[in-house]
Amino acid sequence: MHRTRIRTLVDPLRRLLRRGARTHAANLLSKLHAADVARLLSHLAEDESEQVFALLLAEEPGRAGEVLSELEPAAAVSYLEGRPDEEVARILAEVGPDDAAEIVTALPEDVAARVLDQLERRGHEQVEDLLGYAEETAGRIMSTEVFALREELTVSDAIDALRTSGAEDLEMVFYLYVIDERGHLVGVCSLRDLLLRAPSTELEKLMSSRVISVNVDTDQEEVAQLVARYNYLALPVVDHQNKLVGIITVDDVIDIIREEETEDILLMAGVGEDEEKVLTAPLWRNALLRLPWLLAAWIGGVLASQILSHYQGMLSEMVSLAFFIPIINGMGGNVGTQASTIVVRGMATGRLPAGQTFTQVLRELRVALVLGLLFGVLLGGTVYFLNPSIPELGITVGLALVVSMILAATVGSLMPVVLRNFGVDPAIATGPFVTTSIDVLGITAYFAIASLLVFR
Amino acid sequence: MHRTRIRTLVDPLRRLLRRGARTHAANLLSKLHAADVARLLSHLAEDESEQVFALLLAEEPGRAGEVLSELEPAAAVSYLEGRPDEEVARILAEVGPDDAAEIVTALPEDVAARVLDQLERRGHEQVEDLLGYAEETAGRIMSTEVFALREELTVSDAIDALRTSGAEDLEMVFYLYVIDERGHLVGVCSLRDLLLRAPSTELEKLMSSRVISVNVDTDQEEVAQLVARYNYLALPVVDHQNKLVGIITVDDVIDIIREEETEDILLMAGVGEDEEKVLTAPLWRNALLRLPWLLAAWIGGVLASQILSHYQGMLSEMVSLAFFIPIINGMGGNVGTQASTIVVRGMATGRLPAGQTFTQVLRELRVALVLGLLFGVLLGGTVYFLNPSIPELGITVGLALVVSMILAATVGSLMPVVLRNFGVDPAIATGPFVTTSIDVLGITAYFAIASLLVFR
Repeated sequence: MHRTRIRTLVDPLRRLLRRGARTHAANLLSKLHAADVARLLSHLAEDESEQVFALLLAEEPGRAGEVLSELEPAAAVSYLEGRPDEEVARILAEVGPDDAAEIVTALPEDVAARVLDQLERRGHEQVEDLLGYAEETAGRIMSTEVFALREELTVSDAIDALRTSGAEDLEMVFYLYVIDERGHLVGVCSLRDLLLRAPSTELEKLMSSRVISVNVDTDQEEVAQLVARYNYLALPVVDHQNKLVGIITVDDVIDIIREEETEDILLMAGVGEDEEKVLTAPLWRNALLRLPWLLAAWIGGVLASQILSHYQGMLSEMVSLAFFIPIINGMGGNVGTQASTIVVRGMATGRLPAGQTFTQVLRELRVALVLGLLFGVLLGGTVYFLNPSIPELGITVGLALVVSMILAATVGSLMPVVLRNFGVDPAIATGPFVTTSIDVLGITAYFAIASLLVFR
Repeated sequence: MHRTRIRTLVDPLRRLLRRGARTHAANLLSKLHAADVARLLSHLAEDESEQVFALLLAEEPGRAGEVLSELEPAAAVSYLEGRPDEEVARILAEVGPDDAAEIVTALPEDVAARVLDQLERRGHEQVEDLLGYAEETAGRIMSTEVFALREELTVSDAIDALRTSGAEDLEMVFYLYVIDERGHLVGVCSLRDLLLRAPSTELEKLMSSRVISVNVDTDQEEVAQLVARYNYLALPVVDHQNKLVGIITVDDVIDIIREEETEDILLMAGVGEDEEKVLTAPLWRNALLRLPWLLAAWIGGVLASQILSHYQGMLSEMVSLAFFIPIINGMGGNVGTQASTIVVRGMATGRLPAGQTFTQVLRELRVALVLGLLFGVLLGGTVYFLNPSIPELGITVGLALVVSMILAATVGSLMPVVLRNFGVDPAIATGPFVTTSIDVLGITAYFAIASLLVFR
């Protein structure tokens, strides 16, 4: 095992920087994987990390580019800020076009425009081409450095081409895409095929023509699903004329999966869906991101207070009814969140196929009934024991807990299904919208039961 | 694009089954990827899917094995139930040892033991070997079919070996691992290296000796992180003597990432962490999975009712105080969940490095202050407008909302940090534990403020 423990390097590097031992520091950095340098930067103070980046730029500009492409775009931008446009373009020219496009997107708009101009002048117009595709599409995230050969070439031609192309620069070559004279994607073969077949075999004879590709407009989530489902290492990307224009490799797909999962989780908690924004947006924009969900909760809360004020008379007569509002709302909220999370997640992982969602709703109801009876009897019993003089209170509170938990499981498990049918991302159904509706329903049920049992 | 729309195949397949057109049905299935057959099965009714599986078994036993390995273990088991042990072993022999081990784990214990015996008799003792490693370790999930060659062999020997090994069976060969005479892992080379170097070159001269490997005991989450961080396509697995014993490929890693994300999400919602269990456990065990979280919420709720009963006098004098319990708890719960989700997720994705968690806690507090003031003034104003005769009520309610939202952000963002420091999975901190403590704190603050402002 040769894994690098980044934390153990922080202090030695700091000491070297403080002593001004640039060569030693550069030496230490040159032994690390670019991903590890990127992690190391995040452990340093701002001035130190800028010093390290400047050192990398001076010693190995190509390396600095690699490190940038391992950073989050917002972090990468922080190392570019304040540098002249020309230098930024020179640095980004060392980054792969797909990562460069991501970083350019994170730059202030005016800087981005000037940097793109500079990149184009240097012959790196692919960055601008990528930005022409919509965000979160295959076109936007693909690598344009794809290794493709014409169908009439032979195995030995292909090996020569691999040798002279300096394939080290190409992103992970393991499939060889085959194109016709108009650049249309017509087949695929593996490096293993090249190894095992006679040198004079034509690619056309050896390739599999059942090549699965995605379009530049395909959503990145769909790309990720295809790769995950069929265990591909890469997918070729074609334009609307079926011309091969790029490739998406499995390492990009892992990033997409992580990103999409994070979006789902943030959406479930009611904080927008863009982690980058949530962690870096300035105060006001950050507050704005969470506002819609809280506004929904606020409106629900005001509605709940109106319902309660309707029962003012009952509350004055038996003030202890108020004591159990938090437990009825709280238990309902938790059961509802459990149910909706299970359904939302089951839909996302595919473990809950569309045909079985209704069965799952029924399962959630039965679980809620069991748990509701348990906690309802427990609560009713406790309340009765503490207030034996008003037995109706215990019965009301216990029954209200059962009913509110069942209502919660119903709303929680049905809401994602309903939302999906309306084409809305079901992930929003686990957050404030569900808990707030459950609060309102729970209180209504509680006081309806009280008015039946206590104030007949 | 040659993607299969599974849903469009359900009805035609059904019709063929109903007509008893076995050959046609087998034909239709043989054109699909095993992953698609697996998805197709999930769209069928139970009896239909069993019919399809029996058809596969009869026509192409190897294919039936492939399909099983694409299914969730619990689903795979449902197709094996009721068959004699010998037949189960015969079917599992067609599944890769890693997937077979997963399926055996899901079998009832007595059946599993008998099937393992049968597998061993057939020379498939790897399945039992894999089960000797702890769950969620590299040893448990690795594929034992790893392509490795001795260092003294040449490039042309290697190509011959690839040809004769029937490499189609090996899981995605793209790295060639190099071992010494005792089976120790000493290096790695890529297929591209083989293509580009002279046939007489010894592997020893061509291989990179900086090969990163994991141990059989390495946690699967760590394996996934390594692959994701360094963009590997596969990682070799060695035993405690550094002997090469298996390989974990990137497609397994994608499954691990999905699984770990699901665990986190379920933990965040307070429903255990095993999706398989949550979706398939019988009623009682399912209820038991959720019990601990709900018990915590129940205890918190009872505590809240005790606090409220302490303020019984105040409540009787001004019953309208009770109207705002739901909104104060609800807004607090939502703000707390937002804060804890952001911190938990930031820790998991690495976008929130350990050194910055405290900064993030302060950010959350500031956002909560802004949002608290906004919604507090809005609520206070509304309440004042509706009850101008008791101005203290509006002020109390508005102020209590601000305070409870700030408390919620503090608890929500600090709790994950504290839990992690105690070695507990921070994902627990977004669920019922946080919302319940926030309920209790919020109510305490509300009535403390009321007793200061209204009942001086």
